Amino acid sequence: MDAKIVCGRDVPLQPLGGGVSRRVLAYSEQLMIVEVVCEQGGVGSVHTHPHWQNTYIREGRFRFTINGAEHEVAEGDSIAFPPDIPHGMVCLEAGALLDIFTPMRKDFVPEA
Amino acid sequence: MDAKIVCGRDVPLQPLGGGVSRRVLAYSEQLMIVEVVCEQGGVGSVHTHPHWQNTYIREGRFRFTINGAEHEVAEGDSIAFPPDIPHGMVCLEAGALLDIFTPMRKDFVPEA
Repeated sequence: MDAKIVCGRDVPLQPLGGGVSRRVLAYSEQLMIVEVVCEQGGVGSVHTHPHWQNTYIREGRFRFTINGAEHEVAEGDSIAFPPDIPHGMVCLEAGALLDIFTPMRKDFVPEA
Repeated sequence: MDAKIVCGRDVPLQPLGGGVSRRVLAYSEQLMIVEVVCEQGGVGSVHTHPHWQNTYIREGRFRFTINGAEHEVAEGDSIAFPPDIPHGMVCLEAGALLDIFTPMRKDFVPEA
């Protein structure tokens, strides 16, 4: 198996509605990076999934709701989520997140 | 199991020599984010490990050597590495990477 290199600017942003867009970056079977770009006021509704997830705040400010509790995070902060934990966010200042999943999210690349 | 939040600026950078420093950010048993800060000319020698790794270029420009081939990457680019593939880098313009591992790197947090 070889490495896979993804040039970020070559990947179009996919609008998800609610002021949130995403682009899927490099991924293997076991590890996927997804960039999430948010306008101020953008919302990622509370949801769960069986994947392990880490999130890195690349830019901006966000209020996460995790298991019912609120946490404010900003550039350079990061979060490790266990599987199946309810989580969502509101964007307080426009910016971008990296959502990282193991295993990869097959539902994000149905064409793969 | 609960989520774990890490405030990036609270984690001291650990100098590794050769113009490269790192700080371990949020991690769980299955997923770890490590920030790698590089001066121009900084080197990460070619090495292998059994973990799956993805790398995201947060800032700067780097020349990676992967399985003997050279690839230049810059801000916003990302790489998915399979386990055990030989990889290393030279920093062409000062910046920072995020190295992401599954499972987490126990050797990076011997105190844990």
